[in-house]
Amino acid sequence: MLGRLEVRGWSIAAAESLTGGRVTATLVDVPGASAHVRGGIVAYATEVKASLLGVDAALLADRGPVDPDIALQMAEGVRRVLRADVGLATTGVAGPDPQGGKPVGTVHVAVATPEEVVVSTLSLTGSRDEIRTQAVHGVLELALTVV
Amino acid sequence: MLGRLEVRGWSIAAAESLTGGRVTATLVDVPGASAHVRGGIVAYATEVKASLLGVDAALLADRGPVDPDIALQMAEGVRRVLRADVGLATTGVAGPDPQGGKPVGTVHVAVATPEEVVVSTLSLTGSRDEIRTQAVHGVLELALTVV
Repeated sequence: MLGRLEVRGWSIAAAESLTGGRVTATLVDVPGASAHVRGGIVAYATEVKASLLGVDAALLADRGPVDPDIALQMAEGVRRVLRADVGLATTGVAGPDPQGGKPVGTVHVAVATPEEVVVSTLSLTGSRDEIRTQAVHGVLELALTVV
Repeated sequence: MLGRLEVRGWSIAAAESLTGGRVTATLVDVPGASAHVRGGIVAYATEVKASLLGVDAALLADRGPVDPDIALQMAEGVRRVLRADVGLATTGVAGPDPQGGKPVGTVHVAVATPEEVVVSTLSLTGSRDEIRTQAVHGVLELALTVV
């Protein structure tokens, strides 16, 4: 991922809900990350998605935080707030309980670049930890399709 | 940690530099975290510490990001920005190279609560990954002394 950002001359940042910081931690695990990684925002509490990432509060109230359009707005929001070229986002239900009528394992991942925005919906299975790990892989794989 | 927050009725958030999201990820790994964890800000790029966490830009320019007073301001900043009762912060040099004259393994961790602010300086050894892991433990141990 960092190699592709290097070619493009792009920086990156992540907005995370259920992954709780793991996407950003994965990005900075690579030596040399500081040249490309701006940082991340973990918007774990729902209202932080609106107050810090600029997600539409009415949309949040209407659909709840686990929604593909919320993921897209999180990805666009973190690009803007952290002044990054690429924004990654994750939102979903890690469990153990369903959330707002969405079953455990429902995860939306999104990527915003200067050229396009993409979102993908995953139906994951496993423990809370396994769902989070798969969500991290999911957003990074989606990013590789557009970076 | 979550049990102690429960007793106090306090929420928590983290501002991270070298740990890159791992502190927040550790907090949300516990089921029931959503009742207490507001979220986190990974201020990996130095200027994000000023723009998003409100760290004094002149102090940053003067001393660089690896400094105990920067850690304190990050902890206070994330409390304010995420409207949390407790703010945790990490800044330091994970390596492989020294940063701004500070040797690899120099880490400052800070905790701000409604009652006090504390900071601790660690001199860690090991790989980039091991230094990060010890920094996460360091800030959580410091938090247990004041929460």
